[in-house]
Amino acid sequence: MVSKNTIKLIKSLALKKNRIKQNLFLVEGDKNVSEVLVSQFNVENLLATGTFLENNSSLLNKVKLVTEVTKLEIEEASLLKNPQNSIAICKLPKTEDFPEKIESDLCIYLDDIQDPGNLGTIIRICDWFGINQLFCSPKTADFFNPKVIQASMGSFCRVETWYTLFEPVASHARKSGIPILGAFLDGKNIYEQKLPKQALLVLGNEGNGISSAIENKVEQKIRIPEFNHNQASAESLNVSVAAAIICSEFKRQNYFPDYSK
Amino acid sequence: MVSKNTIKLIKSLALKKNRIKQNLFLVEGDKNVSEVLVSQFNVENLLATGTFLENNSSLLNKVKLVTEVTKLEIEEASLLKNPQNSIAICKLPKTEDFPEKIESDLCIYLDDIQDPGNLGTIIRICDWFGINQLFCSPKTADFFNPKVIQASMGSFCRVETWYTLFEPVASHARKSGIPILGAFLDGKNIYEQKLPKQALLVLGNEGNGISSAIENKVEQKIRIPEFNHNQASAESLNVSVAAAIICSEFKRQNYFPDYSK
Repeated sequence: MVSKNTIKLIKSLALKKNRIKQNLFLVEGDKNVSEVLVSQFNVENLLATGTFLENNSSLLNKVKLVTEVTKLEIEEASLLKNPQNSIAICKLPKTEDFPEKIESDLCIYLDDIQDPGNLGTIIRICDWFGINQLFCSPKTADFFNPKVIQASMGSFCRVETWYTLFEPVASHARKSGIPILGAFLDGKNIYEQKLPKQALLVLGNEGNGISSAIENKVEQKIRIPEFNHNQASAESLNVSVAAAIICSEFKRQNYFPDYSK
Repeated sequence: MVSKNTIKLIKSLALKKNRIKQNLFLVEGDKNVSEVLVSQFNVENLLATGTFLENNSSLLNKVKLVTEVTKLEIEEASLLKNPQNSIAICKLPKTEDFPEKIESDLCIYLDDIQDPGNLGTIIRICDWFGINQLFCSPKTADFFNPKVIQASMGSFCRVETWYTLFEPVASHARKSGIPILGAFLDGKNIYEQKLPKQALLVLGNEGNGISSAIENKVEQKIRIPEFNHNQASAESLNVSVAAAIICSEFKRQNYFPDYSK
C-alpha cells in the first residue's frame, strides 16, 4: 500500500530542486530498477508488484524498505507514460572528487546537452563502448533527472559522471598528453584521418553546438560526413547519434583497423 | 486569431484515426515547418507569428491559408512541451505504390519500431546518409505521428516511406541480387567483415528485436561489438543508435575504405 505522501514525494522528484532538498532520486522501469538493486546506489524504498519482487528476490537484501504494491498503485505513482512494475526511491550519492586519472581511452565532455533523453542515450552509448567516465558542463541536463535514468536503460549505474567546467578536464588531458577532439559541422572527415589512441571528445549543445570558449581549446575538429550530395539534406545529426558514430569509429580504428578492406 | 475549432482540430491530430478521418497531419517546430513549406506536401493552414511569417515570406506562395497568430495562441494550440512560432496543418499524401526500384545503395526495413522518437531519429539518419527510401512493417509507429515529424527535424520531407510486409521488400532485394542484412546481438562483428556494396538492412523492435519469421529470411547477421569486457555493461544499444552506427560503417567501407589505417 502506497501512502499519499509517498506518491507526492515521487512526483516531486521530477524536479532537481526537490531531489536536492530530499537528497533522493527516482529510478523507474524494471530494467533500471533491477540494475540499481545490484549497484553502488542505496535504495531507500522499493515499490514493486509481487511478480517483480519474486523475480528479483535475490537482489532485495540491501533495500532499506520494500513495499509490495499493485500495478494500479504503480500507475498512480509513476512519472512514466507506460509505467512498469517497480519504482525505486534512492539516495543521491555524495559528489565524487574530480577523478585522479582518466581511465578510458576515449573520454567525453558534454557542453550543455539540454535534452534528458539525449544525455541518457549518451550514457548508454558510453557504457556500450567501455567509457566509464563522463564529464558534463554545469548546464548539461541533470544526471538524476528521471528521464535521463530512464533513457540510460540501467547504464547510469556504470558510468561515473562529473559536472565540471571544461578547463579542469582540458588541463588534465593536456598534462596527460591526450588530444582534445571536438565534433563540428566544418571539421575534418572522421573516416579520412587517423584518430588518436586516446582522446578527450567534446560534444556540443543540440541547437548551438560547442561554445566558442571551448572551441578555442579544441585541438582537432572532426566531422561525420553526409552522403546526400545531390539535394538538400539533414543539417545535422542528433547529438547522441553523433556520439555513437564517433565512438564507433574511434573504437574500430583502434581495435579493428585491419579488417573490412 | 485561432478559432476554438482549429485548436480542437490540431489537438485531435495527435491520433492516427483522426489524421486518417481528417486526411490531415501536423507539422510543428520552426525547422520542420520551414522545410515543409518547400516540400511536396500541401500545407492547408499555416499558423505562425508575425516574425516567422516575415522570415519565411518567400516560402508562403503555395500555402492555402496563412493565419497570423500570437505566440500565446501557438502555445495554446501546440502539442509540444516547448512550442515554437509556427504550426502547419498539412494534407496527408496519397499512399505511393511500392517503388519500382530500390535507389539507395543501403536500404532499411524497420520491423515494428514502436517509439515515434526512434522512427523520427532514424528518418533523420537516413537523410544524412543519403537513404531516401525507407520500409516499415505495418506495426511500426506512424510516419505522420507528430512526434515522428518532430524528431525527424525536417528529414520527413526527403525520406520516402512505405508501410509493407517484409516479403515484398525481401523478394525485391533477392531479385536484384541485394543481400539481406539484419542487426542481431549474436551476429558477426561489423568491423571484422566486408559489408556488401548494396544491402537491405533489417532493424528490429526495441524490446524483442527482429521477429523470427523475418530472421529466417536474413542472409547475413551483423552485430556492433561492445567494448566493456571486464564487467557487466549495457545489454543493447538504442535502435536508432544502432541504425546510425551501421549506416556509418557501411558508408565508410564503401566510400572511404583506404583511410585511417
